[in-house]
Amino acid sequence: MTAIPLETTATSAELTRQLCDIESVSGGEGAIADAIEAAARRAPHLDVTRVGDTIVARTALGRDRRVVIAGHIDTVPVNGNLPTRPLVVDGEEHLWGRGTVDMKAGVAVQLKLAVELAEPVFDVTWIWYDHEEVGEEHNGLRRLAAEHPDLMQGDFAILGEPSNGQIEGGCNGTLRAEIRTRGVRAHSARAWAGHNAIHDAAAVLQVLQEYRPREVDVEGLRYREGLNAVRISGGVAGNVIPDECIVEVNYRFAPSRSLEEATAHVVDLFAGFDVRVVDAASGARPGLDAPLAIEFIEAVGATPQPKYGWTDVARFSALGIPAVNFGPGDPTKAHADDESVPVAQIAGTEASLRAWLTRS
Amino acid sequence: MTAIPLETTATSAELTRQLCDIESVSGGEGAIADAIEAAARRAPHLDVTRVGDTIVARTALGRDRRVVIAGHIDTVPVNGNLPTRPLVVDGEEHLWGRGTVDMKAGVAVQLKLAVELAEPVFDVTWIWYDHEEVGEEHNGLRRLAAEHPDLMQGDFAILGEPSNGQIEGGCNGTLRAEIRTRGVRAHSARAWAGHNAIHDAAAVLQVLQEYRPREVDVEGLRYREGLNAVRISGGVAGNVIPDECIVEVNYRFAPSRSLEEATAHVVDLFAGFDVRVVDAASGARPGLDAPLAIEFIEAVGATPQPKYGWTDVARFSALGIPAVNFGPGDPTKAHADDESVPVAQIAGTEASLRAWLTRS
Repeated sequence: MTAIPLETTATSAELTRQLCDIESVSGGEGAIADAIEAAARRAPHLDVTRVGDTIVARTALGRDRRVVIAGHIDTVPVNGNLPTRPLVVDGEEHLWGRGTVDMKAGVAVQLKLAVELAEPVFDVTWIWYDHEEVGEEHNGLRRLAAEHPDLMQGDFAILGEPSNGQIEGGCNGTLRAEIRTRGVRAHSARAWAGHNAIHDAAAVLQVLQEYRPREVDVEGLRYREGLNAVRISGGVAGNVIPDECIVEVNYRFAPSRSLEEATAHVVDLFAGFDVRVVDAASGARPGLDAPLAIEFIEAVGATPQPKYGWTDVARFSALGIPAVNFGPGDPTKAHADDESVPVAQIAGTEASLRAWLTRS
Repeated sequence: MTAIPLETTATSAELTRQLCDIESVSGGEGAIADAIEAAARRAPHLDVTRVGDTIVARTALGRDRRVVIAGHIDTVPVNGNLPTRPLVVDGEEHLWGRGTVDMKAGVAVQLKLAVELAEPVFDVTWIWYDHEEVGEEHNGLRRLAAEHPDLMQGDFAILGEPSNGQIEGGCNGTLRAEIRTRGVRAHSARAWAGHNAIHDAAAVLQVLQEYRPREVDVEGLRYREGLNAVRISGGVAGNVIPDECIVEVNYRFAPSRSLEEATAHVVDLFAGFDVRVVDAASGARPGLDAPLAIEFIEAVGATPQPKYGWTDVARFSALGIPAVNFGPGDPTKAHADDESVPVAQIAGTEASLRAWLTRS
């Protein structure tokens, strides 16, 4: 199979379009990984390693400090929003479509700079990884940290998750749990012989609807929490009283709360129900006092903000590497069906990163 | 393909076991229809016609009255309750497993009598049909009535649905509707940018949980209604605020209420929600004053009861043919995972029908 050619000499916005139009819903990243690998291998200053559908491209210039710059290449499911198209919002040029915000624009900026910057002032490890939008156990960066921790090493890490071109510190933790109700099957014409598990889920949804999420200050940044049903399922057949209903909830919690505390909170909220945690990841404290973080913040000239979404900065934090989020696109548009990124923000992010990496 | 052989000379309980062990969840009735067709064709006194997976076997003795005796050959999904096995409950011999109650025992009694009674006192049309446990549009008897109404004709009809060996008159109507809530997708880390459709379903489940079903007298029989969620679904991915949730409800209504009135009741209960009727069938008034119904009731020596479940007696009613339910098995065990039928009830039903059809 020949990889789809990517024009890394095009603008980062045009490269974003090319990357978005290679559909890459989690689990189907093969084609985009091939394309990125081929583009990276064309740059003689990069040592390229592939692990599954994760591509690692490193400079080896003997610099005294190394920066890791990473982005994920998968998207949530397409919902009538591919191929991408140009869109003008309030007179401002945008690129519209699945992945434009989360996070092909960030990947495009990274790939263009990786190929073009043969002599950055720091050694750089560029990482493009798979399976970020699904269960923790599939995450390409988790796998890389477990199988090749050497390739993750660095003095500072930047994750290109959408942050409106601003620096966002740390991230909320995330936990998914299944809340299960149980009943007794019966023919629906004689419902009194059974017990309806779906009806019992009313109490679970009531808790969710009445829940008021916290806002929490951590190291000067204000984190906003959230608790939501993300899936519900139940039922056997159109004439059977269902004996099970499962509500899957997603709790996003401030980095001041440990995974254990977050789990206890959810178990407590749904006391009396069968609660099973199916996926969980700690948050990350901002960590903006690290020397390279301070330099980077000064270079970009931004006021750091809190990151609401869980991102893989937590994975770098866990390895002791200070890490921030910095990427084009409005994070509130991530996963939305009207996902679109301002073209100027892609160019701006590229310019900031380029200036810092070349100290120009 | 050779049909699976059925021993119609065995007891009706043994024949029930043989029929149950041919798995025949709706949509997969091919093998059991083949087996029944082959058994019927071995009886020289029967004219056999097959329409899809529905088998019609008729005597043509020139009697002045014709009785239609029918049963469905499909079951709801198996849930660890096949193959069948003997079970003793309170010292009474039972046959346990999917389909024993609904309604292979009834089918076994019918098939044994069809093959053995070469000269019944009425002409008899035996019908074994497919797709009763699923959507109205698939029902084999509906198809037969539409495509071959001549094969349905008769002066009186008996449906072998489980009725504890008692005569149950008429049946409740049934209606299935989807109640839909709509939201706006967003990343679950920034839930405030979206709107959660699953949370909104709390109000739908609340209505269901608080609903108190009616009991209604119709022609001296007391019908019990019911309203239940039979399915719920919603969700896009583990980190996306869901934009849709669908609760499928099943309303079972007394035969005094028309389909239009039943629909209006459901629409009214869920006012403000998007309600779509996906499947509906009118009930049937008892009709126990028909001459053959009176003779049959006297012969069996039973006090007629109301039928709660919708059954295809409504289809005969709609053709102007009085019809009752009469079959072995406790209807409250239909679709339950611990479905089991008392062996004595199978034999008793067989004896009653045999005596009436031979006037012995």
